[in-house]
Formats: sequence, C-alpha cells, structure tokens
Amino acid sequence: MPFIATVVLSLASQTSTSTVIDRLRDRGLTDLGAYEMLKDLTGKVGARVSGSNGADKAVLWVERQMKAIGLSNIQRVPCLVPHWERGNRESLTISPGGELSVCALGMSVGTPTKGVAGEVIEVKSLEEAAKLGRRAKGKIVFYNRPFDAKLASTFEAYGGAVDQRYGGASVAAKNGAVAILVRSMTQSRDDAPHTGAMGYEEGTPKIPAAAIGVRSAEKLSALLKRGSVKARLQLSCKTLPDKMSANVIGEIPGSVSPEKIVAMGGHLDSWDLGTGAHDDGAGIVHAMEAVRLIKVLGLKPKMTIRVVAWMNEENGGRGAEAYAERVKREPHYAAFESDSGGFMPRALGVSKSKLEYVQKWLPKLQQFGIERFVEGGADADNGPLEPLGATLFSLIPDNQRYFDVHHSRNDVIYNVHDRELEFGAIAFAALAWLVSEEGLGD
Amino acid sequence: MPFIATVVLSLASQTSTSTVIDRLRDRGLTDLGAYEMLKDLTGKVGARVSGSNGADKAVLWVERQMKAIGLSNIQRVPCLVPHWERGNRESLTISPGGELSVCALGMSVGTPTKGVAGEVIEVKSLEEAAKLGRRAKGKIVFYNRPFDAKLASTFEAYGGAVDQRYGGASVAAKNGAVAILVRSMTQSRDDAPHTGAMGYEEGTPKIPAAAIGVRSAEKLSALLKRGSVKARLQLSCKTLPDKMSANVIGEIPGSVSPEKIVAMGGHLDSWDLGTGAHDDGAGIVHAMEAVRLIKVLGLKPKMTIRVVAWMNEENGGRGAEAYAERVKREPHYAAFESDSGGFMPRALGVSKSKLEYVQKWLPKLQQFGIERFVEGGADADNGPLEPLGATLFSLIPDNQRYFDVHHSRNDVIYNVHDRELEFGAIAFAALAWLVSEEGLGD
Repeated sequence: MPFIATVVLSLASQTSTSTVIDRLRDRGLTDLGAYEMLKDLTGKVGARVSGSNGADKAVLWVERQMKAIGLSNIQRVPCLVPHWERGNRESLTISPGGELSVCALGMSVGTPTKGVAGEVIEVKSLEEAAKLGRRAKGKIVFYNRPFDAKLASTFEAYGGAVDQRYGGASVAAKNGAVAILVRSMTQSRDDAPHTGAMGYEEGTPKIPAAAIGVRSAEKLSALLKRGSVKARLQLSCKTLPDKMSANVIGEIPGSVSPEKIVAMGGHLDSWDLGTGAHDDGAGIVHAMEAVRLIKVLGLKPKMTIRVVAWMNEENGGRGAEAYAERVKREPHYAAFESDSGGFMPRALGVSKSKLEYVQKWLPKLQQFGIERFVEGGADADNGPLEPLGATLFSLIPDNQRYFDVHHSRNDVIYNVHDRELEFGAIAFAALAWLVSEEGLGD
Repeated sequence: MPFIATVVLSLASQTSTSTVIDRLRDRGLTDLGAYEMLKDLTGKVGARVSGSNGADKAVLWVERQMKAIGLSNIQRVPCLVPHWERGNRESLTISPGGELSVCALGMSVGTPTKGVAGEVIEVKSLEEAAKLGRRAKGKIVFYNRPFDAKLASTFEAYGGAVDQRYGGASVAAKNGAVAILVRSMTQSRDDAPHTGAMGYEEGTPKIPAAAIGVRSAEKLSALLKRGSVKARLQLSCKTLPDKMSANVIGEIPGSVSPEKIVAMGGHLDSWDLGTGAHDDGAGIVHAMEAVRLIKVLGLKPKMTIRVVAWMNEENGGRGAEAYAERVKREPHYAAFESDSGGFMPRALGVSKSKLEYVQKWLPKLQQFGIERFVEGGADADNGPLEPLGATLFSLIPDNQRYFDVHHSRNDVIYNVHDRELEFGAIAFAALAWLVSEEGLGD
C-alpha cells in the first residue's frame, strides 16, 4: 500500500510538472515576449560597451523591465569597469590596394592622429610572429589564420583562431612591430570587421590592434603574394579611467525554500558595432522572459528564481568577479547562463556531478530543441560560481550562424528569429521550474 | 579464432566507414559546394513552375551539372505536367482600406479583366464556410485561421491550416461565393503573400482563389470588425494545356551490387514568387552535392547511388507518378528525399521496418546535426516507392524559419546559410555510403 501511494504521488507530481511546462510553452510561443523585449533593448538602448552611456542606460532598462515583470528585491551589485571608447575615426589604407574594412579591437590603444604606417608582414600564428625576430621591426604584422571550416562546431573554430586577436599585439610588439591587423573571427564571407577583446602583456609596448573584414584580409593576402604592401592605420580609440557600473538582479522569492537560489542570466554589456542582439541581448531576454512567463502564469516556485544581468563580460569580467564575491556570502543552488546567441536550442551544458541526475528531464525538454545534456555548464559569468557550490547550466543553441554576426555590425535584431529566441527562454523557464520543484538530488 | 577474425574484420570495416565519413565532412565543409550549386540554380534558372520556360531550363541545368560531376546514365524520365501561369496582373482593393498584398493560389482560375467584386465575409474554417449557406452568395469568403503558434513544429502548424488554402474555394463556391481569399500559410509577421497549390472539387464552380499577406489579413479582419468591407480581386492567372516535361536522373554505378539502387533527391519545380531556394532547390543540391563529394573523393560505392530530380511536386505530383511507374520495373533498395528546406539538420525519418536497424549509425551522423531517427521517411516524391519495396529516408532540418520563406518572394538564396545547407548534403552522402556499404540488414 505505501508503495502504491508513492507511485500515485509521484505520477501526480510528474503530471503537474509536465502541465506547467506545457503552459510555459503555450504562453511563450503565443506572446513571443523575448523578441519584444530584445527589440526594446536593442532599439531604445542599443550598443552598451562597459563604461559607456549605453551601458548606464542598459542598467536602467533592466531595472524598469524587472519592475514591469513584477520581480522582487531588484538590486544593483556594483562593480568598477574598464572604460574603453572607439572614438570617431578608424581607417586602414594600403598601397597598393586602397581602403580596407577595419575596426579597432576592444581595449586597443589608438594611433597618433596621422596614424601609424609600415610595411605589412603576414603570419598565420603567434609562433610564426614570434619567430619573425627583427624582421618585424617597424612593420605591421597581419595575422591571417582563418577558422578551420572543417570543424562542425563554429565555437571550436573560434577557439582555434582567437589567440591571434587576444594575444597577437604583444607577440608582435616584442619584435618591434608598430601595429597589428587580425583577420576577423568569423567564417562568414562578407567584409564586416569583427571586434572583440585583446590584451597587452605587462612590460611590452602597447601597439594598436585592429580587425579587418574577411574579404579585406583575402585581398591583402593576395596583394602580399605579388609584392610589398604598405599600410597606414588610424584608430582614435582610447581607454579612460575605470567607471562605476553594476550587475542588476531581481527575483521571484521561493515559496518553500527561499534560501535556495536558482540564478539565471546573461551579460548586459555588448560590443559597439551592432546592438548586441545575439551577444548577449539574447541571454538577457532568455532569463527575463523565463521569469516573466513564470510570473504571468501565477506560478509559485519552491526555490528563489533570480535573474542576473552581468556587466562587463566582454572586456574585463568585473561584473562576474563582483557577483562571485556576493555569492560567497549568499550560496547559490544553481546558476544558468546563456551567452551563445539566440538561435534554436540544441543542448544544455550541466556540471559533471549532475549530468546523470538530470537525464530524466530530457523527455520534457526535447520539444524545445534540447536534444541532450552535455558535461559543462560553465560560461564566463556563471563559471566562478561552481567552486562556490552552485550547479551550473548553460544554454547551447545551434551555432552555425553565430560568428556571422558576433561582435560585428550584423549583430542586430534583424538577424534574430522570434520563435528561435523564445524557445531558449522557454527552455530556461522549464529548467528553472524543474530544478526548483524537484531539486538536484541533494 | 573465427570469432576473433570476425571482430577484427568488423572493426576494420567500421574504421574505414568512419574515415570515409570524415573525408566527406572535411571536403564538404571546405568546398561548401551545395551553396555554390544553389546560387547557380537560383541565379541562372530562377523560378521553375511546372510547364514554364524556367522548368525547361532547370531540366537542362540538372543535366549539365550531372555531367560536370561525372555521373553516368544521365536520363530523363518523361512526364506530362500541368501548365499554370500567374500572368502579369494581380491586385486586391478593399473599401474601406485600399490595396492589400495578394497573390493567386497555384492552379486558381483568373478573374475577368475588371476583376470580381463582392462583400467580404470572414470565416476560420471550412466547416464555418460550409455553414454560411446562402449568406455566402455573391460574396468573397475570407479564410483567416492562423497557424497555431503553440505548436513547436511549424510543419504541424502548417498541416493544421492548409486545408483552407487547398479546399477553401470549392466549399465557398457551393454556397455561391464569387472568390476566396486565404490568410498566407506562415507564422511570419511580414506581409509577403505565400502561394501554394489549391484544387477544385469536380462539379463545383471554379472561383478565383488568392492568398493575402498576414498583415493584410489582420488589417482586413480589423476592418470587418468595424463594418462591411467590399473587395475587388483581379487575377490574370490561367491554366494552359499540359506540357511534356521530365524528371532527371544520373548515377554512380555500384561496384559490387549495381542492381541495388539507392536513390536520393528533391523536386526540381518550384513556385514562382521567389526562386525556390529552400523549396526545393535545397533538396536538389543536397543530393547533387552528396554525389559530387563521393565522386570527387574517388569513392566507389558498392551499390548504385542515383540522384533523382523530380518534376511537378508542387502542383500535380506527375513526376513522382512517372518515376514510380519506372520503379515497378526497376526496384529500389532505398530512396531518400529532402523537401523540408536547407536549414541545419535535426533528424532523419526512416521507414518503420528499419527504424531499429539504423540506430547504430546515429553516432556517426550526430556531428551533422542528426540527433535521432524517427519513424517516417516518406515525403511527396519518394512516398510511392515504399509499397514498391524501397526503404525510405527523409531529411528533417530545423523548421522554425521554413514557413517564413515557403512559397513566397522570400524563398531566395539570401535566406539560405552556406554551412547549414552543406550539413544536409554531407548527411545524405554519409547515409548513402552507410546504406551502400553496410546494407539495411536484408
């Protein structure tokens, strides 16, 4: 008899969870609220580089949205962020060849007003640049190793090329180069330049660093095969003193175990060439729409479900640091991050220790494109919370189109699909509900 | 000892199959040949409605491509096809309200030059239209049941709405209506009208049938809530006498069992508003690129691998009929169809009898987005071959974006992604290789 009672109870609870998930799906796909919010964020706030007026406006925007959704305990978690500005002028002229498509890399120093000039020398790797020795002196080093197209995952291809962008300047500077150019981090064949963070090693001269469009890179490479090419690069970017900014949080307090916090979010800052629609407006609205759906359906989660809009993921990670400090005093049960775009979901990453436990949820999530759980779950902002005890989850959408838009002028609402975006939000809502109602087996 | 020998052989064969599949992937993702072919088809041939000059050019285009790829036994399988033409003029003016976005449905009769006019009456279903009785007399019946947004699969949503487009005219005509308007079969929020086949029941008057854009449908519906709306519809479309056309086939003869035919393809005809890039240029180039990859790598399949470019899928299925007649004399081992767009693959449909057998291939195909095999495999053109003994497979790509473009002016190369398209082709090549080398367990 006790055995039968258990079965009945367990079936009832299962049905009820499934019913809730169906309601989340029906409401989400009807409202398409994630897209509406993203249109508002990208249209009214636009680009939001850390330290910029756009970033300040984004903080206010999130607070307003959280109030409108009816979240509780809306707060800022302050952090001091870098303040880098692109300025008005960036140009690259090569001779022979004319103008190329160019943008400064994030955190690069600028050039003098008249620019820096030098002969261009092409390399395919940091190692090759390091071996140039004094041949690099006075030159502009051009890193031109493309994505490996053969990799099915574009994130893997990105991972195999991005060292050129991040570390190329200091390697070249050690050999006396005056600037670097980097082929944009994309597989797309257009000519939009893609920015992104770079860094300088301490003790090496800081030289200007810029990305050029893929077609520009191919043109430059073709010209270099025929003979010497001179270039003049002008960048007006500069780094100003650090500025106060903040992560923003808001929550639905738990009805049974409010001390158990299930956080989810993305990063609020973006690069400046587009309006950060996929990177990471999508992550912000995935989390905001998830809690909106839970609120609007009048659901009362057992645990506290919190949205975190992290600041400064792109060029510093100061928001994640400040948030992790807070979590030392306020342990988290779980932390979800979405920072891989607003495309159709394909999988969820999860902390290794819970990979087996969560498998039972898969049948409920497959309708949202979640075909499997994979070991992982750590992205840039939730990563620091795993050693502090949180189980991590990360949304893994389809990635074929991501680097077409990433960090470029193409990262705009026009390249986001309303239903694909909503599926990510519903997946987060459903996952938050499952974690909150059923726990993680401990 | 025999046991060990079997194991060794089986491992060797497995490794070799995996190696072949890796080579197909590497070459495909490097060349992106499917996209190059599709650019050529949509650019040089363009739209290709059955019976049109475009369809004639498409037949020649496929033959040329097959020769260039080096296929053998290139042949036409003739079929007599309907010949419907849109003509130059289509317009819809409502009063109050002005011009709406409109297109004739495929196979509709035209209107007199001055159009047909009548009061508009809105319904949500064929049942509702049937119940109008004499209230429909002299009216224009407007079918306005949208896709059910709550369905995760847009194909299901399409299936739940398309009866209005296909059958709406005759239901309305029985009650004396003079024309019908149908809300476009899409979930997209733009105003592009989407055409598609309609049919007339024998013995009912043939009245003109047109699709209107979604925003136009919403405007019209809003006006009808305020009062009476009159409309004038002008369509210059007409049906000419049937015309000779053809399916086109070409193959790589099998090196061991040439009598075992593994056919794969899509349909060569398209609608006329776009250039049939996804529907079904994608299916054509999926198959053509698959055999190109096999040829260019110098692989010798054991069975015969054949491409079939079916004619007249959109408005008659005469190509499929003619091809099935041929298969009665030339049994097929397997037949793959791709007619669901060129988006990232998600699954493969397969005949029920082989669903269990093929599971072992899943680990090899998952890198191409094929997350599972599902029961099915029958699409419009390969369907008739199952009762003739062929095991069917169908490619199931992600479908969220499909009905944004389907049968509309948006079905153009610009809305196809080069890598997503190629994954479908590589999946077909890998599947053809697996079927040819390992058989289907019989």
